[in-house]
Amino acid sequence: MPPTGSPRHEAICRAALEVVAEDGYDRMSMDAVAARARASKATIYRHWAGKRDLVLDALHLRGPSCVVVPDTGTLRGDILATLGMVDTGTMREDMLLVSGVLRALAGVPEIADAVREQILEAKRDLSRTLVSRAVARGEVPPDADPDVFHVVAPALVFFRVTVLGQPVDEEFLTYVTDDVLIPLLTRQRPVPARAEQKESA
Amino acid sequence: MPPTGSPRHEAICRAALEVVAEDGYDRMSMDAVAARARASKATIYRHWAGKRDLVLDALHLRGPSCVVVPDTGTLRGDILATLGMVDTGTMREDMLLVSGVLRALAGVPEIADAVREQILEAKRDLSRTLVSRAVARGEVPPDADPDVFHVVAPALVFFRVTVLGQPVDEEFLTYVTDDVLIPLLTRQRPVPARAEQKESA
Repeated sequence: MPPTGSPRHEAICRAALEVVAEDGYDRMSMDAVAARARASKATIYRHWAGKRDLVLDALHLRGPSCVVVPDTGTLRGDILATLGMVDTGTMREDMLLVSGVLRALAGVPEIADAVREQILEAKRDLSRTLVSRAVARGEVPPDADPDVFHVVAPALVFFRVTVLGQPVDEEFLTYVTDDVLIPLLTRQRPVPARAEQKESA
Repeated sequence: MPPTGSPRHEAICRAALEVVAEDGYDRMSMDAVAARARASKATIYRHWAGKRDLVLDALHLRGPSCVVVPDTGTLRGDILATLGMVDTGTMREDMLLVSGVLRALAGVPEIADAVREQILEAKRDLSRTLVSRAVARGEVPPDADPDVFHVVAPALVFFRVTVLGQPVDEEFLTYVTDDVLIPLLTRQRPVPARAEQKESA
């Protein structure tokens, strides 16, 4: 049995997440994980009771998915660079993983919690970093919503790729940046009473 | 064999879409469809070669999913009323259906096309109606992006429900309306100059 943290243990966990990303949690088989990790199924079952336990363990071992926001010197540059990472590295893996566990998100609460905490919540800081830098540069008002990037950007990208099946190409990134995110971040927000009196414009 | 358009044919098609929405396309079984439609599997297989054909036929029979935008007299009212429909009737069915076929969207192009055309594209008019009414009332500038509601609102709602597993509650609807959609629709768009920066032209 591979002790926690051993190379063998890590290889199995990594294989499990790859299989989830490719086949989806529902279709994931221990055979596929075993084959990919070059381990026997007996070895896997000695350590994990089933795929739920294995995937959970793998998510925890992987840890929160931190992404460093490129510091390009402008809000527009930072946004484009951050969104551009969706097609590569960790961000791409994250998105495939979220797609892979999508149905499990509704039915397996522990997996849903782990994914939301380690993949989605972990990116809230990214949004805040991006906004606070822009505030410091004077590009956006000090009361700009620090979470708007976090709420809007992943949703647009996820819907585009998963539902519309369209590429995260330059046209899309430019649209999201110039026609959605920058206008939302740079707008002058009305003073508090907003909710009641919307008709001011 | 149920002739196209017969009540029996329609019942089977309706059952198929319900099963897809509940179990997902991957897990959908003809047994479940037969049981729900109170039909024999033999009857089903006499008419459809397999689940792909059945689901495609069912999507086409269902036709484009048209939603009438409530005319409340204000942009804010129209947006809130439209978004509020997500939890009821056709819009709710649509969302469950899109979730159900999500993995099929990547692997079964005919189903992806049918879903995108009849469920998603069909709602572009909704966005345009909403915006053109607001333009007519003078609530938004005449050059307001007529598609921004179409691009942004479904993505935010879908991500919220499917990935975050959170409810489409009043707090969320108010946020999306007041902090995302209305600011995007009412903003003064810069004069063309910016377009040159976009590589697309």
